[in-house]
Amino acid sequence: MIKKYYLLSPGPTPVPEKVLSSAAEPIIHHRTPEFSKILMETTEGLKYVFGTKEDVYILASSGTGAMEAAVINTLSPGDKVLTINGGKFGERWGNICRAYGLDTKEIVLTWGDDYSPEQLAKEIKNNPGLKAVFTTLSETSTGAIFDIKGFGEVVAKTEAILVVDGISGIGATPCPMDEWKIDVLVSGSQKSFMIPPGLAYIALSPKAWKLVETSKLPKFYFDIKKYRKNLGKQTTPWTPGVSLIIQQNKALEIIKNMGLENFLNHHQILGEATRSAVKAIGLELLAKRPGNILTAVKTPAGVDGSKLVKTMQNKYMAYIANAQDPHKGEFFRIAHLGYMGGFDIITALSALEMTLMDLGYDKFQAGASVAAAQKILREAWQ
Amino acid sequence: MIKKYYLLSPGPTPVPEKVLSSAAEPIIHHRTPEFSKILMETTEGLKYVFGTKEDVYILASSGTGAMEAAVINTLSPGDKVLTINGGKFGERWGNICRAYGLDTKEIVLTWGDDYSPEQLAKEIKNNPGLKAVFTTLSETSTGAIFDIKGFGEVVAKTEAILVVDGISGIGATPCPMDEWKIDVLVSGSQKSFMIPPGLAYIALSPKAWKLVETSKLPKFYFDIKKYRKNLGKQTTPWTPGVSLIIQQNKALEIIKNMGLENFLNHHQILGEATRSAVKAIGLELLAKRPGNILTAVKTPAGVDGSKLVKTMQNKYMAYIANAQDPHKGEFFRIAHLGYMGGFDIITALSALEMTLMDLGYDKFQAGASVAAAQKILREAWQ
Repeated sequence: MIKKYYLLSPGPTPVPEKVLSSAAEPIIHHRTPEFSKILMETTEGLKYVFGTKEDVYILASSGTGAMEAAVINTLSPGDKVLTINGGKFGERWGNICRAYGLDTKEIVLTWGDDYSPEQLAKEIKNNPGLKAVFTTLSETSTGAIFDIKGFGEVVAKTEAILVVDGISGIGATPCPMDEWKIDVLVSGSQKSFMIPPGLAYIALSPKAWKLVETSKLPKFYFDIKKYRKNLGKQTTPWTPGVSLIIQQNKALEIIKNMGLENFLNHHQILGEATRSAVKAIGLELLAKRPGNILTAVKTPAGVDGSKLVKTMQNKYMAYIANAQDPHKGEFFRIAHLGYMGGFDIITALSALEMTLMDLGYDKFQAGASVAAAQKILREAWQ
Repeated sequence: MIKKYYLLSPGPTPVPEKVLSSAAEPIIHHRTPEFSKILMETTEGLKYVFGTKEDVYILASSGTGAMEAAVINTLSPGDKVLTINGGKFGERWGNICRAYGLDTKEIVLTWGDDYSPEQLAKEIKNNPGLKAVFTTLSETSTGAIFDIKGFGEVVAKTEAILVVDGISGIGATPCPMDEWKIDVLVSGSQKSFMIPPGLAYIALSPKAWKLVETSKLPKFYFDIKKYRKNLGKQTTPWTPGVSLIIQQNKALEIIKNMGLENFLNHHQILGEATRSAVKAIGLELLAKRPGNILTAVKTPAGVDGSKLVKTMQNKYMAYIANAQDPHKGEFFRIAHLGYMGGFDIITALSALEMTLMDLGYDKFQAGASVAAAQKILREAWQ
């Protein structure tokens, strides 16, 4: 059989054909006016999606590089910080902070659980002298989103800065940086930004820039002052990812032409369709506060969750994501992020129904998940 | 909303990504050993799919060019020929023959109807002195296939040659040229051959080559003797479609690696899934003898067929094909041809269900067509 590859993971995500084909264009040199123009246009586009008047800096790294940059540019050895660990990526904030010898207080949640601004306010009160609060817009390991707007209100009243991992979330769920009083916001290229992995993005508020001035953690490649100084000259401190930036500029044009609000609304519709569909075949969501980035679905009783993911991938070539350790097999993750359309969701659901039948699970009516998704897509689409 | 483009028409068809990307490789010159090697490999691959030990010639033209080449290379003014017109493309044989002043007897069928070898035998008996019988393997306008094997048995016993338009059919439905006693077989690149439009293919049996020697119809660009002479020197008479031939060579490699039998079987499964699916929502097929190339489905009563196709294309970007004149709107055509997979069918069916609901037709259970297709795909896939 001819089988096509369907990338349904929460990063990397599919890249629009016109963006992808631009990678076959000749590489231009980065110390030229041509590249400077593209760099500045791309920066403007990123500011639009970040919802900030601050500059957004482009790092040649994965998202984790930008997370590390957020830590090492704002803090000093022994600083007291709070991290919210709602899954694999919230946990990473703690790991980075501890790697740099910060005094790290970590809130550990059960995967999929929510954490309220009220809880955060209480925790901050109980931990005086915090320099920073680290959290996650969309926890990619669970599909949950946090109330970043609420966190912003709470943290803005303190001396601490609010540092948000927006890697999988920005563009797919609202997160206007300035309006929500976020001090450091980071993201990555391979999510809603619709280009291949390889670039990471970071922006800092005036409150965060103040900390940069006093920060004593060691840094070189990720030294944000070097990026700021060079962007002032319309260039970059090190060799930039030229072809990826060219692709990002093209992908941002798609978002700008569509309008950020419509782009967010698109994700909302795909999220709703997916949630409604899996519920229609009797499955349960993991996240208490599910985002529109990906949907984490609990493996039904009697089904081997890892086998489910393997069947989806190997037999149907529908590359959804397994749960990560230590919850492998307990749930699976269907993304609806970036350059995915309604029929990518239909494909995922159809493959899921067939997989469940392959594994002997038949407590649902065939086609019911697709019908539920269709109902939402049909009404939303023009 | 982000909407992706789904090409579900019976030509052009989608091109595999690796074949498509090879079009971005540098163009090589055609009078070189490098190109000769590719030309000869491609010719071998075409012979494999055609099921012939004869050479298959590559024309830079659409399929219609190869149809014209079949006529003008074998016949002479005033020759008596029979054409079987079961739709738009069978009709074309008559149009070409008449354009060249041939004495053309045309069997006109109701679109979708079958024509048996017995009927053909009788017709040939009633029309002595026929030089050629022109027919169609897969009538793209109706989705019907004809019993070419049976026609071959009948025509082989006469002085006439059997000329078959295999443009949409070869590769998707069995048609072994030599075994089935076909004298001239033509095809095009944009169907099961999985590359863009622009090339046409033609092969002739020894019986047909004999007619070539006496043929007096005027010809130059399509003069098949020029192609034969040049292929003997591993080249082409005119500038060949270099990048398309490179792509065809790569696409043929996919078919060879898969095995022609598996490639045919793949189409069989997609055809069965589609037919089963549309029947599951109460729709009817047009063709009495439907092929696995495309499925023509009658527009249900009360639905505007042209509006149906427009909604599929504009709202869902599922580019199925309308019926052609004079039957526009009476039925629509869903292709399952070439580089299409099971989820392309699911997408087509899901878009069809949503479209029917959009147009107020609700005499079916939502998801039922998808469920019916899933049943067949799930069991057939490994």
